[in-house]
Amino acid sequence: MRQSRDVIADFRSDTMTRPTEGMLRRMVAAEVGDDCWGTDPTTRALEERCADLLGKEAALFTTSGTLSNQLALRVHTVPGDEVVLDASTHLVVYEGAQSADLGHVVFNTLGAEDGLVSPKDLEMVLGGRARGPAYAAPRLLCLENTVNWHAGRVLPLDDMRRLRSVSGAMGTATHLDGARLPNASVATGVSMAEYAATVDTVSVCFAKGLGAPFGSVLAGPADLIRAAKRFRKWYGGDLHQSGILAAAADYALDHHVDRLAEDHENAVLLAGLLGGNPLLKPDLHVPMTNIVVVDVTATGLTSEEFVAAAADLGVLLGDWRPGTVRAVTSMCVDAAAVRRAADRLNLLAHRATATV
Amino acid sequence: MRQSRDVIADFRSDTMTRPTEGMLRRMVAAEVGDDCWGTDPTTRALEERCADLLGKEAALFTTSGTLSNQLALRVHTVPGDEVVLDASTHLVVYEGAQSADLGHVVFNTLGAEDGLVSPKDLEMVLGGRARGPAYAAPRLLCLENTVNWHAGRVLPLDDMRRLRSVSGAMGTATHLDGARLPNASVATGVSMAEYAATVDTVSVCFAKGLGAPFGSVLAGPADLIRAAKRFRKWYGGDLHQSGILAAAADYALDHHVDRLAEDHENAVLLAGLLGGNPLLKPDLHVPMTNIVVVDVTATGLTSEEFVAAAADLGVLLGDWRPGTVRAVTSMCVDAAAVRRAADRLNLLAHRATATV
Amino acid sequence: MRQSRDVIADFRSDTMTRPTEGMLRRMVAAEVGDDCWGTDPTTRALEERCADLLGKEAALFTTSGTLSNQLALRVHTVPGDEVVLDASTHLVVYEGAQSADLGHVVFNTLGAEDGLVSPKDLEMVLGGRARGPAYAAPRLLCLENTVNWHAGRVLPLDDMRRLRSVSGAMGTATHLDGARLPNASVATGVSMAEYAATVDTVSVCFAKGLGAPFGSVLAGPADLIRAAKRFRKWYGGDLHQSGILAAAADYALDHHVDRLAEDHENAVLLAGLLGGNPLLKPDLHVPMTNIVVVDVTATGLTSEEFVAAAADLGVLLGDWRPGTVRAVTSMCVDAAAVRRAADRLNLLAHRATATV
Amino acid sequence: MRQSRDVIADFRSDTMTRPTEGMLRRMVAAEVGDDCWGTDPTTRALEERCADLLGKEAALFTTSGTLSNQLALRVHTVPGDEVVLDASTHLVVYEGAQSADLGHVVFNTLGAEDGLVSPKDLEMVLGGRARGPAYAAPRLLCLENTVNWHAGRVLPLDDMRRLRSVSGAMGTATHLDGARLPNASVATGVSMAEYAATVDTVSVCFAKGLGAPFGSVLAGPADLIRAAKRFRKWYGGDLHQSGILAAAADYALDHHVDRLAEDHENAVLLAGLLGGNPLLKPDLHVPMTNIVVVDVTATGLTSEEFVAAAADLGVLLGDWRPGTVRAVTSMCVDAAAVRRAADRLNLLAHRATATV
Repeated sequence: MRQSRDVIADFRSDTMTRPTEGMLRRMVAAEVGDDCWGTDPTTRALEERCADLLGKEAALFTTSGTLSNQLALRVHTVPGDEVVLDASTHLVVYEGAQSADLGHVVFNTLGAEDGLVSPKDLEMVLGGRARGPAYAAPRLLCLENTVNWHAGRVLPLDDMRRLRSVSGAMGTATHLDGARLPNASVATGVSMAEYAATVDTVSVCFAKGLGAPFGSVLAGPADLIRAAKRFRKWYGGDLHQSGILAAAADYALDHHVDRLAEDHENAVLLAGLLGGNPLLKPDLHVPMTNIVVVDVTATGLTSEEFVAAAADLGVLLGDWRPGTVRAVTSMCVDAAAVRRAADRLNLLAHRATATV
Repeated sequence: MRQSRDVIADFRSDTMTRPTEGMLRRMVAAEVGDDCWGTDPTTRALEERCADLLGKEAALFTTSGTLSNQLALRVHTVPGDEVVLDASTHLVVYEGAQSADLGHVVFNTLGAEDGLVSPKDLEMVLGGRARGPAYAAPRLLCLENTVNWHAGRVLPLDDMRRLRSVSGAMGTATHLDGARLPNASVATGVSMAEYAATVDTVSVCFAKGLGAPFGSVLAGPADLIRAAKRFRKWYGGDLHQSGILAAAADYALDHHVDRLAEDHENAVLLAGLLGGNPLLKPDLHVPMTNIVVVDVTATGLTSEEFVAAAADLGVLLGDWRPGTVRAVTSMCVDAAAVRRAADRLNLLAHRATATV
Repeated sequence: MRQSRDVIADFRSDTMTRPTEGMLRRMVAAEVGDDCWGTDPTTRALEERCADLLGKEAALFTTSGTLSNQLALRVHTVPGDEVVLDASTHLVVYEGAQSADLGHVVFNTLGAEDGLVSPKDLEMVLGGRARGPAYAAPRLLCLENTVNWHAGRVLPLDDMRRLRSVSGAMGTATHLDGARLPNASVATGVSMAEYAATVDTVSVCFAKGLGAPFGSVLAGPADLIRAAKRFRKWYGGDLHQSGILAAAADYALDHHVDRLAEDHENAVLLAGLLGGNPLLKPDLHVPMTNIVVVDVTATGLTSEEFVAAAADLGVLLGDWRPGTVRAVTSMCVDAAAVRRAADRLNLLAHRATATV
Repeated sequence: MRQSRDVIADFRSDTMTRPTEGMLRRMVAAEVGDDCWGTDPTTRALEERCADLLGKEAALFTTSGTLSNQLALRVHTVPGDEVVLDASTHLVVYEGAQSADLGHVVFNTLGAEDGLVSPKDLEMVLGGRARGPAYAAPRLLCLENTVNWHAGRVLPLDDMRRLRSVSGAMGTATHLDGARLPNASVATGVSMAEYAATVDTVSVCFAKGLGAPFGSVLAGPADLIRAAKRFRKWYGGDLHQSGILAAAADYALDHHVDRLAEDHENAVLLAGLLGGNPLLKPDLHVPMTNIVVVDVTATGLTSEEFVAAAADLGVLLGDWRPGTVRAVTSMCVDAAAVRRAADRLNLLAHRATATV
């Protein structure tokens, strides 16, 4: 990727956040054992803390949100089971290959316009096909909150409760990909445990807005988490002195949750500054979290061209769906950087149309 | 299933057709070897005949349409590949479990209202997601013709040609589930080879309207058929004296293709006789093939109740989507039976509303 | 394969047997329905007969011995389970690919010299590795009787009983690949049910010495057979008018079991006639069933060359392990043919050494 | 596990090693990016260094030795392929479940008494079965060096060269599980690159004797490593700021390779101190690396009892095969600790027999 020498703002992803000084100090000081032998105290403590935080019996530290999701598929399903989920979830967009090949499940995808699965759609799908015992059964519903593909939209707690009552009535379990659940929680004031209470298992990522180098957690009933631990080894995800990593996650929970509000304000700021420009159409919704998807078609540039031109001006964006780019706010950018970046993007938009 | 002593008409499926006297004579007289050793002359001859008939280099005799489809998935894809297909295809509705668990592929489902994949939808899907090399690639497009789930609709030849030009441009192969391709061909006058020319591999079923006891064929390029043969053994589908079965299929191709026109006329007749009844709404479209889906919601009965009540009157139907039943015409019913059955169904509809 | 115009004896396999007149008559006369809808009376009757014959609650008709075995793997195991079996079993030699790829299991192979798993070996293997819950567990023991790879050796009933007590104590289920169990039964006078009583599931093949065109049966507890039926559909093995095939199997059980004694006598005869020749070393053991493996190294020919030369003389053999060929007796050969064939083979052996 | 308050020596595993001060400093100072976006300079540098060190085109940093092995299976094979390896390798003993379920391969296990695959055994296996194209093909040979299960034995370079010439002639690729290849290299003076030159891909673990918290590397041809990277994402092994971990590995390569000689000396010391005791039979061989397997049957204790009793005395061992325990030397123990521990173990052995 081309990059100007002077990066004004890196909006590519909240995974770009780097460990802070404080976090590094905590990592270095961590008491470690060998988690493969069950003797890493820092990892154990983090898992217990996360179980509490999410209101679940048990939790498992994993290397990535992808691994957490894949383990969830394994513990909820047997081969050939059907997983119901919106076409825009991370599992569909980024984990389709492994969900089939490693997870042995088939997706039954809904197509909500805003990525927010509605109880009505779910009812239709779960009740929809006349099939016998030889066919795939909808064993698992997967939700995502916030929805990355749809500009960080928050799936409302009430909807989640109603979804649970629908899926529960059908004997279908629910997994929540909560990679950015902390963002949803901070944006709405609903605790993560309240959201998690509406699902069977939930994963949260430490490497996004929370700023850990990597790592995720999967929480749920003790028997499922035990099963997930077995599969974690299969997938190569067992770590030895994982306490070093767990310490980073622990620090992030102490210091980087509440501050997500700042990222959300910066997203609102960015959307506002771009929204005044008729050539740039940010996806505005309430509440905004930390993702701003901007329609750039009116500039006459493709999303790829726009991303490249912005990078030349020191503003790093993500190429999103055709005609759109994604800007993610995080610890990588502060309000001042957002303002400067917005100026550049507005300038870029006008230049582009002038050229065209 | 409850059944009256006197069955007037069996519309449950064209798979209910039984071998005729002539077919049985051909089976008994078949010269056989051991097809596992490549020495069954009747099977070999059938495979060559089918390759010719479908305009392909080679063909493989299989036990079922499901097996043909599953083998097609295997030879076109590697684990984790994406298969694009309409949500109403047999592969999605009835083969989801094994496509994931045995076939290792992930479905990317389109949602055409009538099950007929449009070139525009395909273009959108193949071009739609911004993803890198780590993600599932749309390696295969699967079509079905006629579309069972949508009342035997015919996917027009022109659409198939345009679909090929779209998928071909993306390097995506195409498989046609032609379980009822003979019906499409007879209904439109377009040869099976013409349809097959627009796809890479094609399967045809001998056990539906064609009346063989069981069996299907998969045709395509020689190298893919060779690969399919290997997988056929893996799936337990290699047979020894398969010539007995191949003889039935051969007989069906001689005697039971043209007569499908009669089934189609009977479907039109049935739809017409029921269509006059305001309580029964058959799905009318052009051309009709051998499937009549009837909306029975106005009768106040569920589809399940309607099927049961019809069976009591000697008319065997299939329970279809909520509120609908399916009637398939085949050698099991002639025009007289259709008329008598229609009378009963009309009577049943009126009785039901009277009762309600 | 080269073949002389006049085949004296076809010893390639007992799968070469062709349906007899009587069998064909029974097939033609069979009452059929659609087994996919559960309405084929002949198939149902055969399944009940086989359940009785094997002393099990239920049975399922399948297209092949391979399918029966693969279904057994599925119903006894979950992905990642370990299957303990001798390195010479059909599952290892011919079904390794699909057992991993479709069956998701890992083999733990024993290496008995004669293919007959001993209770002592089993104990060692089941107790052998110090491993925790994350590792493959030996969920299933698979036996074969008779052992094809080891010249049709019979696994003694007493050994099977002891194996069961070992595996049972470890919570490991047992499946018997009884493709040629009728041969074992006829050779020893032990009923098939007695053998089957020592295992959880058992499969028997109708297409080998029993002479049906194809087909096999898997018998066991009702819940496992129900599960196997579900997987049978996944693997493409559901048939419609399967009664035609079931009738052949039914006829075979009536007429072709006891006559296996004749095949065994012919095997003894062949082994005796060849055993007098110092250049040909048939594998002699007690009881012989219908397979004679002959060491041909003393002739100076490779097994491949020997098979080709024998075919030129009208005697069809199978190329077996390096240096050995396999002759299978079946309805394809009578005693006179065996004598004539033995003459030719002895002649061939002498000619070969003379040339060398 | 019971543990005395005062641990004298932790011989459980070299994975118990904790990051040193120097290593932690390097980790904290590491320049990081987001390796999922290809922008982590420290990870890139480590991968290049490892490629050089192992004489391969490219290398990939992974979370664990298990993941490296599993990725190797994926890039060398297609589903249903056969992998030839000794029954004692890590892949067989600890990775059987996932090799079948995730890797889709079947193992063909050799049974070398000392775990050292011999060219003669390999020849026999690769040439051994008469099978056609439908059957599993031996696509990959996996070796392990040193062999954990056999007390850290070194597979000699000459044997590896001969194995390659055998497997190469059959078109079979070779992967080396070099989790402890640094130990082999230090023990023999043969460079890791020399060993690696005899195989196609090689993995090395940083978390064993090298002392990193976790992490491994897979090296090989550029196209295979690219393929492995794709699968790494599937398995959930992509990390964001992985540079922190890569820095630990980098430090380990600088400072912890040569010092493995000390671990080997300590192993010799331990074996010598125990070897004088007639009740304890350490597995002595040349060269010793860092694993001492001790036969404790003469003490009358089971391996489990012996491990528990030793732990009570402050000596932590691993429960190994029935009747044996494993002691691994590493940075966790110095020579003084070895001496004290040996005293305790000798005492324990005598006490045990006295009690019995």
